[in-house]
Amino acid sequence: MIRSHEAGTLRKEHAGQQVTLAGWVARRRDHGGVTFIDLRDASGTAQVVFREEDAAHDLRSEFCVRVTGEVRVRPEGNENPELPTGEIEVSAIEIEVLSEAAPLPFPIEGDVNVNEEVRLRYRYLDIRREQVARALKLRSEGQFIVGDVLRGHGFVNVETPTLTRSTPEGARDFLVPVRLKPGHWYALPQSPQLFKQLLMVGGLERYYQIARCYRDEDFRADRQPEFTQIDIEMSFVDQDDVFQVGEDLVARLWKDLADYEIPRPIPHITYADAMARYGSDKPDLRFGNELTDMTAYFADTTFRVFQAPYVGAVVMPGGASQTRKELDGWQDWAKARGARGLAYVLVQEDGALGGPVAKNLSDAEKEGLAAKTGAKTGDAIFFGAGKPHSTRELLGAARLEIGRRCELIDESAWAFCWVVDAPNFEPVEDDKGEQIGWTSVHHPFTAPKAEYADTFQDDPGSALANAYDIVCNGNEIGGGSIRIHRAEMQQRVFDVLGLSKEDAESKFGFLLEAFKFGPPPHGGIAFGWDRVVTLLAGQDSIRDVIAFPKAASGYDPLTAAPTPITEQQRKEAGVDIRPEDLEEAEKAEKEAKAEKA
Amino acid sequence: MIRSHEAGTLRKEHAGQQVTLAGWVARRRDHGGVTFIDLRDASGTAQVVFREEDAAHDLRSEFCVRVTGEVRVRPEGNENPELPTGEIEVSAIEIEVLSEAAPLPFPIEGDVNVNEEVRLRYRYLDIRREQVARALKLRSEGQFIVGDVLRGHGFVNVETPTLTRSTPEGARDFLVPVRLKPGHWYALPQSPQLFKQLLMVGGLERYYQIARCYRDEDFRADRQPEFTQIDIEMSFVDQDDVFQVGEDLVARLWKDLADYEIPRPIPHITYADAMARYGSDKPDLRFGNELTDMTAYFADTTFRVFQAPYVGAVVMPGGASQTRKELDGWQDWAKARGARGLAYVLVQEDGALGGPVAKNLSDAEKEGLAAKTGAKTGDAIFFGAGKPHSTRELLGAARLEIGRRCELIDESAWAFCWVVDAPNFEPVEDDKGEQIGWTSVHHPFTAPKAEYADTFQDDPGSALANAYDIVCNGNEIGGGSIRIHRAEMQQRVFDVLGLSKEDAESKFGFLLEAFKFGPPPHGGIAFGWDRVVTLLAGQDSIRDVIAFPKAASGYDPLTAAPTPITEQQRKEAGVDIRPEDLEEAEKAEKEAKAEKA
Repeated sequence: MIRSHEAGTLRKEHAGQQVTLAGWVARRRDHGGVTFIDLRDASGTAQVVFREEDAAHDLRSEFCVRVTGEVRVRPEGNENPELPTGEIEVSAIEIEVLSEAAPLPFPIEGDVNVNEEVRLRYRYLDIRREQVARALKLRSEGQFIVGDVLRGHGFVNVETPTLTRSTPEGARDFLVPVRLKPGHWYALPQSPQLFKQLLMVGGLERYYQIARCYRDEDFRADRQPEFTQIDIEMSFVDQDDVFQVGEDLVARLWKDLADYEIPRPIPHITYADAMARYGSDKPDLRFGNELTDMTAYFADTTFRVFQAPYVGAVVMPGGASQTRKELDGWQDWAKARGARGLAYVLVQEDGALGGPVAKNLSDAEKEGLAAKTGAKTGDAIFFGAGKPHSTRELLGAARLEIGRRCELIDESAWAFCWVVDAPNFEPVEDDKGEQIGWTSVHHPFTAPKAEYADTFQDDPGSALANAYDIVCNGNEIGGGSIRIHRAEMQQRVFDVLGLSKEDAESKFGFLLEAFKFGPPPHGGIAFGWDRVVTLLAGQDSIRDVIAFPKAASGYDPLTAAPTPITEQQRKEAGVDIRPEDLEEAEKAEKEAKAEKA
Repeated sequence: MIRSHEAGTLRKEHAGQQVTLAGWVARRRDHGGVTFIDLRDASGTAQVVFREEDAAHDLRSEFCVRVTGEVRVRPEGNENPELPTGEIEVSAIEIEVLSEAAPLPFPIEGDVNVNEEVRLRYRYLDIRREQVARALKLRSEGQFIVGDVLRGHGFVNVETPTLTRSTPEGARDFLVPVRLKPGHWYALPQSPQLFKQLLMVGGLERYYQIARCYRDEDFRADRQPEFTQIDIEMSFVDQDDVFQVGEDLVARLWKDLADYEIPRPIPHITYADAMARYGSDKPDLRFGNELTDMTAYFADTTFRVFQAPYVGAVVMPGGASQTRKELDGWQDWAKARGARGLAYVLVQEDGALGGPVAKNLSDAEKEGLAAKTGAKTGDAIFFGAGKPHSTRELLGAARLEIGRRCELIDESAWAFCWVVDAPNFEPVEDDKGEQIGWTSVHHPFTAPKAEYADTFQDDPGSALANAYDIVCNGNEIGGGSIRIHRAEMQQRVFDVLGLSKEDAESKFGFLLEAFKFGPPPHGGIAFGWDRVVTLLAGQDSIRDVIAFPKAASGYDPLTAAPTPITEQQRKEAGVDIRPEDLEEAEKAEKEAKAEKA
């Protein structure tokens, strides 16, 4: 090492020692012939004092330097109790500039007030900022904990391929042309799903991987084209065994990294319950303010709008005092989410009900409304009416928005739950909202619960799955299922999904074939690692916990990837060879052979 | 869990207990009404006894079953001391077939005698074989150890992007079309080299990653298009610091996984020495039998063949008794390696020198030959003459071949060394062997040793690099260097390599820009993880330690990847958009804007 000590480790005990430090000039202060430098390295910061006039003359922010000096106790009154090294300073004897720094696009110390693209463009400078470096270190420590916990449970860490075959899991695959087999392409995996199931067929019994996954999705704010998941699969288990492992994992992560003891067992809530009470399959349980089902209440209503298969309500505490503009704002908010609007009733100070909906309600309806919804004087009651699922989702979103606006959410709280008993299938609708088929809620390998195992094909909409999600503060941080391990049942699922034998064969025939050779009952879970770390690090965006994230549309402001490729590269990679060319070539080859014979 | 115990954990102490096991039917033996089943799960095997006639009637190999029964001590004389569970058996009470197995393409138990493609096609069955599962478990444990050691040294585990920009490191990049930016492509990284250097600029100081890397190379037997490396980078270090970490890592791996204490420090050998003595930059030090430099010895020879810039020899113990056919075989062996042949002299029993070369040598040359080369009566001496580097490589290969044929290699031995002081540059030659330029021996970011730092551009061929490889039993298991951290020196290296400012800018301008902001001195190393695990597991091929390896040309016999893609996929991925289309579109856009203004 070209230094003897790390700057952040110096203490009073080092007083009198000569040390050599190496790091960056974080701050510089000149005081009449004496120059103070905060020297920063990965361990922290120490104050270096230059008493010779010129020694530190040329030092500018973020120069990389090596300093030799003597550790001294700071003069009384000059200590800095904020700093672990605040009792000492290093009196410089010698300084060497290891490299200079050009003027910075943004300051490293203190708050940064530039747009994110600039931060990503100079990500290496951004990483010098303590907050970013701390998030990366927390992620690293978390990764170690994951391995430690799962190894303790006898899991085998297996790397599965990333140059593989297209798998059909909703999103598009990224494709990779194969030079050595022109016209043929690999796909980057959306998850190791098929491979982890193959490992279970292989008798490995307990698999995990911190797996890079790829989804070519349209841009959404908090998505990345590549992301990381903690991927887990187990044999001979039922749902509770997966929960046990999953809870051990999050419990240890939150204990070690957020100093929080998760109460166990983590409570279960059914999917139906979560939708009914919170209007979400990932309910934020840090606050109550649940939805009220008003369908029966309005069963005989004469108000057209509420003559719907589902009517629900959610209360906004103090919402009656909102201005007209604020109330109109809710209508825009609802419209932006694809709804027609958000009906509301205001419970006014005098007990009367205000707002345009009230006059459409009967006296009886009005009378019991506050009690039924739990609204108090001064509150607003928002209503949704229509198809149950989408209406509940609207009210669930309103609940969250109310939670934020009314500060009902304890930002320091952690609230976990397992959402269980999700439906196995959900309807596929055409543009007009007509059902045209079924799709898997989780994925096509998810087993129905035992009570639906023989009948799900007759009534797909009622079948519940052996599937589960784990939710933290309203974020789905993981999800999984017990898998189908019998080819016969898998075939019935494909039938429901309208997947022909040929399609199934071409897409994952190798998995179906594997299932002919004594597959064990198995199941698993995958955690969204970027999201887990974001929560643990107290950050807002997964980009804050990824070393080199992409910006919008998958663009990397740092390397300017992706880039055009040259004709030479196209040619080499065989990009322009098409399936029909291959067929023709094959045909010609066959004919040539036939002629020969 | 649907079982109460793991089969391999049952012992005498469990006698009398009722247990439920789940696993696979490994072997079945019928003995007059009594059926014995070896039930295998991931933990091992236990014997299950069926005393009812029909209970086990339908069980065939690799059926997945659940058995409930009572643990009993085996009758005296029936114990199996080879098996950890050999003292007990489970007397079956109830059996459930969890899934059936079709006839197997190859047996799971015992030796497999099918070609590798069949094993890879049914890799999930191959993984049930103990040897394969053991290798994967060893790899997993190794991965944990890597994290444990490096975390202990304060390293931060950082995931770097795999959808990135083409980097120029010799091999071709795999490319990925970007749907959201048609005509633009990502590249899969050949290594995280540039990102780890950026992390050093970012002040992280100690980085590691178990990184998936990609190289689109022509097929070679022991290469995979994707592979894994233990990637390490450190700031403020010199070569010895990297060695310290590297040795701590391999020492712990070999101690824990191969029960071998590596003597430390691992010896250093210079590149020049390794080439001179072993004819290899990755010398196998498990045996001696070094090359002898005969250039001076033959300085005045009249034998034309030996009038060369370099003449060397290697002895084959007992080689004089080879048949004519065997000696001719060596000529073919040499020709297959691109040499003209392999001159030899046989030290015969009577002390005379045999073979066609001997008669071309002077008496003086003949007289001292055996002593000079260390050959004894009965040995053969092989000679190479020509350009030093390629001739030494030929003799080095001959040395290895001799080592194998004459069983000079202790297969149970471990021999490590650091190969240091490699040249910074090597000549690029055209088809005729004329030098047309220089290329980097390691990569263009490698720093020259201090004594060449100011002058390497004047005499690139003599400059030695701050580069090092770690070699185990003749395998390069890792390599790295101290990097250049000054833009000025980096530019001089590019000049030597004939890389124009524009080229350098377009290829890694972002790294050069980062180096403007106080880059620290830094260096690192990367271990070929597949190779390390192969050695530790005592396997021959890296395919034996990869869960789902590719076969020749990157074909996966299991999933049949890569596959053709559809016109729809081509269109969606924007595969057919070309740079000139983009330019035209850009031009049109600009013109439209100009008109508007």
